[in-house]
Amino acid sequence: MSEFVPGLEGVAATRSSISYIDGERGILAYRGYPIEILARHSTFEETAMLLLDGKMPRADALEEFDQQLRRNRRVKYNIREMMKHMPGSGHPMEILQSSIASLGMFYPGNECLTGGDVCEDLDYVHNMTVKILARMPGIVAMWEHIRNGYDPIEPRKDLSIAGNFLYMLKGEEPDPEYTRIMDACLVLHAEHTINASTFAALVSGSTLASPYAVISSAIGTLSGPLHGGANERVVSMLESIGSPENAKAWLEQKLAKKAKIWGFGHREYSVKDPRATILQGMMKEMCERCGVSRVFDIALALEEAAEERLGPKGVYPNVDYYSGILYAEMGIPTDQFTPIFAISRTAGWLAHWREQLSDNRIYRPTQVYTGPELYDHYPSMSER
Amino acid sequence: MSEFVPGLEGVAATRSSISYIDGERGILAYRGYPIEILARHSTFEETAMLLLDGKMPRADALEEFDQQLRRNRRVKYNIREMMKHMPGSGHPMEILQSSIASLGMFYPGNECLTGGDVCEDLDYVHNMTVKILARMPGIVAMWEHIRNGYDPIEPRKDLSIAGNFLYMLKGEEPDPEYTRIMDACLVLHAEHTINASTFAALVSGSTLASPYAVISSAIGTLSGPLHGGANERVVSMLESIGSPENAKAWLEQKLAKKAKIWGFGHREYSVKDPRATILQGMMKEMCERCGVSRVFDIALALEEAAEERLGPKGVYPNVDYYSGILYAEMGIPTDQFTPIFAISRTAGWLAHWREQLSDNRIYRPTQVYTGPELYDHYPSMSER
Repeated sequence: MSEFVPGLEGVAATRSSISYIDGERGILAYRGYPIEILARHSTFEETAMLLLDGKMPRADALEEFDQQLRRNRRVKYNIREMMKHMPGSGHPMEILQSSIASLGMFYPGNECLTGGDVCEDLDYVHNMTVKILARMPGIVAMWEHIRNGYDPIEPRKDLSIAGNFLYMLKGEEPDPEYTRIMDACLVLHAEHTINASTFAALVSGSTLASPYAVISSAIGTLSGPLHGGANERVVSMLESIGSPENAKAWLEQKLAKKAKIWGFGHREYSVKDPRATILQGMMKEMCERCGVSRVFDIALALEEAAEERLGPKGVYPNVDYYSGILYAEMGIPTDQFTPIFAISRTAGWLAHWREQLSDNRIYRPTQVYTGPELYDHYPSMSER
Repeated sequence: MSEFVPGLEGVAATRSSISYIDGERGILAYRGYPIEILARHSTFEETAMLLLDGKMPRADALEEFDQQLRRNRRVKYNIREMMKHMPGSGHPMEILQSSIASLGMFYPGNECLTGGDVCEDLDYVHNMTVKILARMPGIVAMWEHIRNGYDPIEPRKDLSIAGNFLYMLKGEEPDPEYTRIMDACLVLHAEHTINASTFAALVSGSTLASPYAVISSAIGTLSGPLHGGANERVVSMLESIGSPENAKAWLEQKLAKKAKIWGFGHREYSVKDPRATILQGMMKEMCERCGVSRVFDIALALEEAAEERLGPKGVYPNVDYYSGILYAEMGIPTDQFTPIFAISRTAGWLAHWREQLSDNRIYRPTQVYTGPELYDHYPSMSER
């Protein structure tokens, strides 16, 4: 038996061809395509296909997949009614985990796995992927209306995933520039090797649980503050700084206390996270176009102060820093940031689910036992 | 980087003092107490405390815990209404994963973890444990009525967990002998080291996700046919055999085809699973008391035939074989067997969640990358 490594850091938990990180060179690639190429040229729909199928889709296949996703956006009214019975105070990630777990009852089709054999039927895997990927954004947007006491907005077929999501969230024609930024954000967050939520998806998937159960497990795992919750915290952190003039003093104070500064640094990268560089460019463009808002302004001031103090240590703003600011600027409520992360990462989770099924073995690691020796009798109450 | 071991078999994924298996000697012990001692002398309430706290409770502490569990059995009507909107065709494990994920909105109290720091507050951990453990059996029983179009039965405070579960499931005074068997089944299934669902709970819990998210992830993982679904399959397998006279020929046929025989053998044990021996004794007692039913009869005939053919190879009926038969004999629907497993295993999952929090590190293993080299440009449609 191997020695126990906390968090299994450095322990290979799978073989995968889906994504690749070189943390020293600041490279993230999906199926060999550097993230910069995808953010500039691809769409979330195409990137999802790339992740799932392993190669760039041909025009007709992409068109068909896109149409399937558009046709599968509607959500049954019983799901809406279930959501109406959930407390308005519930965190959107709780609603999402619960709703996705229920989705399998409304949109079944898991017969292929229930025989206990690995499913080789790619049609089945593809159909399940469409059913889930198409409905995630709508379910997130629905909750925004329901928790405020309104009926949700019906989806539209004439918009991209990013555009339809913004439309369903806001109830108005989406701004094309915001749609472009949202699409790029979905591309950037879609996959990131074996993080905790993806690992949870592999473990769940390895029992041949349904993909709804698998994605629900991954959502629950992503909901933890050490994983998906960081970009939510960036905005409240920036708001607590109050004004750009305070940024430098605030940072010094935090550094002196060795406190956590949300949105800076990343375990996987010793140089700047390539996704952060891309989002930073988008943030600058948005500044030029919309003018600098208060949160933007504070973010820029904090970034400048941090550049000087943290840059030499290789600590830079990460993907969460900029995505949080961009979403806030689009008027998206803070607690919806992690659900947007989940919408995007579902593409990666489903790609890993599919890869796991193609060469499955149930995860059953071992433990280092640290408990007592065996007792030889049941202790009476007076012996305890 | 270490080499990849499929399923992480033999790779230590945690340090744990909760349970211990010696597969060669047929030993399973919780906190040092062999399962035979617990099945004979303990109750599910006491065993849960043993698993959670690490030691046998004193009389007053056990009494207080038991009272807390009784006081927390009621389930809010909005949860019932949510369940009424779920399709009656839904598998009880889907309902359970979805309902438990929603429970955190109705019974919050997770403030302790949301700061992103590990929680040292044992009161908090204890309170969350009670909220979940107390309501799991009721939610399983509620679905049985709702899916048949009836309002669920309100819980009673004067019964044990096992007794109240049977009462809520059947709507009648529980048979004391059945209550005793159900209690023993809950003790026997409560914990089994780092299986896939427990591992999923560790991975989810390591992000500091709420315990509702964690238990929901574990339920989703348990729902897979390679993990929790085996005892469901035992009964349909026995029914398909049709009569005791067919058992021997049926077995020979299956063995000749190298087909899977549900309820036989266990990856962890090379001798007979100690839980199976205990359940076998209970099954015999039940036979003497209630007479032999058709399924019992077939089960006994198959066991006899298998003893001769598989015994010499160290393959015996396992825990799923007997628990499935016992539940069927109590008139419990087959698809509720895995949810009963989940009710019991929640004690173990919560004990592992607590242990993980006490020395947390987020799970982030690595991968063996098998994908393409980096591409240097975005392919045009004609290049694909």
